Amino acid sequence: MLVVMRKDATDEQIHRVVDAIRKIGLIPHPIPGSMRTSIGVTGNIGRVNADHIGGMAGVLEIIHVTKPFKLTSREMIPEQTVIEIGDAQFGEGNPVIIAGPCAVESYEQMTTTASAVAEMGADMLRGGAFKPRTSPYSFQGMGLEGLKILNAARMRTGLPVVSEALDIESFPLVERYVDVIQIGARNMQNFELLRRAGRSKKPVLLKRGISATINEFLLAAEYVMSEGNYNVILCERGIRTYSNHSRFTLDIGAIPELRSLTHLPIIVDPSHAAGKRSTVIPLARASLAVGSDGLIIEVHPNPAEAVSDGPQSLTFDMFREFMSEVRQTPVRSRLVKEVLT
Amino acid sequence: MLVVMRKDATDEQIHRVVDAIRKIGLIPHPIPGSMRTSIGVTGNIGRVNADHIGGMAGVLEIIHVTKPFKLTSREMIPEQTVIEIGDAQFGEGNPVIIAGPCAVESYEQMTTTASAVAEMGADMLRGGAFKPRTSPYSFQGMGLEGLKILNAARMRTGLPVVSEALDIESFPLVERYVDVIQIGARNMQNFELLRRAGRSKKPVLLKRGISATINEFLLAAEYVMSEGNYNVILCERGIRTYSNHSRFTLDIGAIPELRSLTHLPIIVDPSHAAGKRSTVIPLARASLAVGSDGLIIEVHPNPAEAVSDGPQSLTFDMFREFMSEVRQTPVRSRLVKEVLT
Amino acid sequence: MLVVMRKDATDEQIHRVVDAIRKIGLIPHPIPGSMRTSIGVTGNIGRVNADHIGGMAGVLEIIHVTKPFKLTSREMIPEQTVIEIGDAQFGEGNPVIIAGPCAVESYEQMTTTASAVAEMGADMLRGGAFKPRTSPYSFQGMGLEGLKILNAARMRTGLPVVSEALDIESFPLVERYVDVIQIGARNMQNFELLRRAGRSKKPVLLKRGISATINEFLLAAEYVMSEGNYNVILCERGIRTYSNHSRFTLDIGAIPELRSLTHLPIIVDPSHAAGKRSTVIPLARASLAVGSDGLIIEVHPNPAEAVSDGPQSLTFDMFREFMSEVRQTPVRSRLVKEVLT
Amino acid sequence: MLVVMRKDATDEQIHRVVDAIRKIGLIPHPIPGSMRTSIGVTGNIGRVNADHIGGMAGVLEIIHVTKPFKLTSREMIPEQTVIEIGDAQFGEGNPVIIAGPCAVESYEQMTTTASAVAEMGADMLRGGAFKPRTSPYSFQGMGLEGLKILNAARMRTGLPVVSEALDIESFPLVERYVDVIQIGARNMQNFELLRRAGRSKKPVLLKRGISATINEFLLAAEYVMSEGNYNVILCERGIRTYSNHSRFTLDIGAIPELRSLTHLPIIVDPSHAAGKRSTVIPLARASLAVGSDGLIIEVHPNPAEAVSDGPQSLTFDMFREFMSEVRQTPVRSRLVKEVLT
Repeated sequence: MLVVMRKDATDEQIHRVVDAIRKIGLIPHPIPGSMRTSIGVTGNIGRVNADHIGGMAGVLEIIHVTKPFKLTSREMIPEQTVIEIGDAQFGEGNPVIIAGPCAVESYEQMTTTASAVAEMGADMLRGGAFKPRTSPYSFQGMGLEGLKILNAARMRTGLPVVSEALDIESFPLVERYVDVIQIGARNMQNFELLRRAGRSKKPVLLKRGISATINEFLLAAEYVMSEGNYNVILCERGIRTYSNHSRFTLDIGAIPELRSLTHLPIIVDPSHAAGKRSTVIPLARASLAVGSDGLIIEVHPNPAEAVSDGPQSLTFDMFREFMSEVRQTPVRSRLVKEVLT
Repeated sequence: MLVVMRKDATDEQIHRVVDAIRKIGLIPHPIPGSMRTSIGVTGNIGRVNADHIGGMAGVLEIIHVTKPFKLTSREMIPEQTVIEIGDAQFGEGNPVIIAGPCAVESYEQMTTTASAVAEMGADMLRGGAFKPRTSPYSFQGMGLEGLKILNAARMRTGLPVVSEALDIESFPLVERYVDVIQIGARNMQNFELLRRAGRSKKPVLLKRGISATINEFLLAAEYVMSEGNYNVILCERGIRTYSNHSRFTLDIGAIPELRSLTHLPIIVDPSHAAGKRSTVIPLARASLAVGSDGLIIEVHPNPAEAVSDGPQSLTFDMFREFMSEVRQTPVRSRLVKEVLT
Repeated sequence: MLVVMRKDATDEQIHRVVDAIRKIGLIPHPIPGSMRTSIGVTGNIGRVNADHIGGMAGVLEIIHVTKPFKLTSREMIPEQTVIEIGDAQFGEGNPVIIAGPCAVESYEQMTTTASAVAEMGADMLRGGAFKPRTSPYSFQGMGLEGLKILNAARMRTGLPVVSEALDIESFPLVERYVDVIQIGARNMQNFELLRRAGRSKKPVLLKRGISATINEFLLAAEYVMSEGNYNVILCERGIRTYSNHSRFTLDIGAIPELRSLTHLPIIVDPSHAAGKRSTVIPLARASLAVGSDGLIIEVHPNPAEAVSDGPQSLTFDMFREFMSEVRQTPVRSRLVKEVLT
Repeated sequence: MLVVMRKDATDEQIHRVVDAIRKIGLIPHPIPGSMRTSIGVTGNIGRVNADHIGGMAGVLEIIHVTKPFKLTSREMIPEQTVIEIGDAQFGEGNPVIIAGPCAVESYEQMTTTASAVAEMGADMLRGGAFKPRTSPYSFQGMGLEGLKILNAARMRTGLPVVSEALDIESFPLVERYVDVIQIGARNMQNFELLRRAGRSKKPVLLKRGISATINEFLLAAEYVMSEGNYNVILCERGIRTYSNHSRFTLDIGAIPELRSLTHLPIIVDPSHAAGKRSTVIPLARASLAVGSDGLIIEVHPNPAEAVSDGPQSLTFDMFREFMSEVRQTPVRSRLVKEVLT
């Protein structure tokens, strides 16, 4: 931590800050400069709550040096976490492809999709049974019925299943039926839900909030991990910016940044970022090229009749072609090594 | 709703879209232009889920005309909602001032602050008992103990109290002890919590999410209202932008915009937007001038020792001076009338 | 400046950085912490270009402490700059109101507007003769003819005139005819134009770029001042954010922030931020309340027929009512003092 | 164009709008809905300036359907533009790689870099002779001397050269010495400079402004093209968002979006988006995967001593490895076809 004093700070103000630093058990190192004095602060394990010093007379600014995250941090735990779910291995080098409809709509829709994407080479299934909807008047998902259909789709294909747990109430149900529990972007700072996920035995797929910084994203993962669940898969899914040609702006640079900061696997959701079918595959290609550990993609047997996210769902034909392309080019494994060296 | 066809759309594609519109019970009005055909759609009460049409061949874009909110809408309910809590009246014309510390820290801190702000003219008290914290390692609030202290502060001063309900688990506790239940910015799309608040008999103070659009904000209020609780106070508290000189960018223009769209009262939290003490009062003045129905401001007896948000908390002296200024200039009441005429 | 080393930086890497700092004439102050070493750097007058140190092995981050601006800085020049133009005084305490159409369209439109706003109490006239237009196919302004009309409007009313110099080519013309030369938001980093303005004897009204930080804004003013022209009026006019209910998001907090950082006068353009008539006056009120030294507002005799910015132009009636309100409440003068103490 | 009337618009207001539309030579198509009336407008070739209708009584909103660009538009000119410069072909299918230092610093620095990148497989050289700098106190480039050095580097390697023309004054010099004239992000709406570039015989590399929409970007290209210069290469280089882990947020989805809207070649600058060396190559890979027609990358013989942008410059070793990777995987050519079908 560095405390920057104002140019016109008095000696007495500087002394008072130095004392305040000592008072919270840390060691002040005043650095008198030609224009102003700064005070280096050491002795802290992790980030210190010294915000109140920012409000003391003569202080211009507080600059934090130590990152506030621990269990998620590659500085703390250098080796890459690999999370195995069935045959899929997140973080091992080959991208894991998760596919399926936005929402479970019927037995037929889900099993047809499951069989199709399994045959085309997908590693896991997705499908929402509980749907977060901006409007209370929109379709809210099939609930338990949807989870049972997901289970049937898993039985038929052997593919593990991921689905969103929307709230505390439905968490146990989702936990029972799925292989990976998704925490959605809107819930990235629903701390009660994060803690509940942290007490689960099932792996968690944590989506980045649409206006979350990397720090906030990792601290959300830290909430889950601090309760004992170390199996967290991070998912970049686009952020909200002024740029209005796509639904969200995929923050593609977040993947290498996260790679260097954390040992957790990182995947990308190109469908929600794109918001329209024609951009999904280009973003998926970019995500694999940049070093993503996997993708979660919306695929629907008949997007024109999808209950939600129809415009951004791939058709079977598009997904088939994309998968044949993916399986030919296993380029990613070198990336992890690069970042780590 | 307007369906815009591509320049090169075939007649058959246009016919298929026209049929699809009829199929969902609406009336298509094709408008052939010199460059392309558009299709006006009528017959819908409220917003229609016709997203799948956006994915049909030949369609360039879908443009929604009807706003998706109902109970919050001034088009539906033209007269201004006034919410009375003790002597405070939100939406009646005079700004309601809510003051107090970010977090309840001790009996003494809270009662001292309560007595001070009451004497200076505040209308209500604030104080967090359950605190949403970005890091799991930060102070999480005093919980029930904090609520009891808030209650003591209310008894002593007669001022009603607002405090945040962070999650479903703590909701009933908060509901029992406070006069107004706050839903924080991070929870603006925690739909389970919104619905729970909608089943409460107590008024709700709903903060805008840091990346929420006005539409999303009003739909969050719609979640509360659709469960039967019509006493919702909206609160603008700054949005996340690239502009890094303040903690958040106060979207001051949102107040007149909301005024024209909704009949609900609208207040402003200048403290979280500012992030530093010196900017809080300027933003508070701007908020009253723009037509806010009230303010929620952080005040602390000794900001340098505050557990959270110290740098943005006003001292007693600053708050006293601000209040004497506020009570001299009741400028706002004309604004509501202006917007409505 | 502070150089933060990686946790795993070797002693040799630290030594090499220490040497590199000495090599550019500065003094390194290593601060060994429990987790990592940081190196304080002193001896620099102003900001040092030591970016290359950020790329050295073992370095995690470079943190700059000294602000990069000088002539604009209140730390350097504490007393408020007051700029007098005719009877108008920017920065003296009473807000200066500039009014007029977006573009000069005809002799009649401009002189009618000038007479009207003069009679209603405006201090200065605005009107664009050279218009920056996003599309090459839009109306580009009346040019020299427009400047002559502006001049006629000045003669008739006695009000000084501000108009935009769009480029180097038209600069001398604008400079000859107007009292204050406007540099528009799109040109805030057109350094050639800024330098040219810096060699003018006429005051400059510099608008903030729609994605400029406060630092970049002040450095743009620094370009003008470094050429010898110290009469720069800063103008906040809204920034580009995700929030789509208004044309731009007025960064109202920038005014107190700028007030504390610079001695230059600061005004607000509520018209371009709002983008629609109904929000202009609320934003204007907020701007005066927050401490703006003035306003620049679009007023048009018949907005429905305006060549540009019609929807955001006030009618004469709206402007008259606003001015009667402004002239009754001279609240601002205390603000400067507050910030400075 | 669609004019949306307010719910409470009177018949007379609707008639007046209908008349106003006819008055500007267009054809109104009223569509009475259950809640409100909308009025479709046809007859316009290109976008109409009917903004003033937005300000008429009873009008809620104006929605534009026709895109405002023409010469850049793929709807107008369906076939892909290919721009040949020496052996490099932008838009033909194989990515063109442009490499070199941020700024020309010396004869030795430039010729060493040129020889190195030529030998490693680069197609073109970059190097700034005139540098746009946020601060007037930063190094502003070597000017004419720098251009001569660039010329020497071209002679030695045979590689064509791109360099930025910063302003009208230096434009003719840059134009004489380089093969492609760069217009930088800060100048994307410097319309005088765009028009000047439009009168040049040399191809133009136009960078997207850091807060430009896709529409504004294409309209900037339209300025160049409308003066007769059809050889415009578009360059995405990152946009300004709240996300602060990289210097800018690469808007990777803009590439497929631009591909569908325009026939002009599109390249990416991963260096300025990344802002740090370790992220440049991941972003470069993503850009090629998403379908970019090329890359412009900063490479420096000794980044630790670079005058500008040192931290984001690749070393020779990094660039060599990247080039060997690029030359093995010519994946892009299928993309153009996909988008177009």
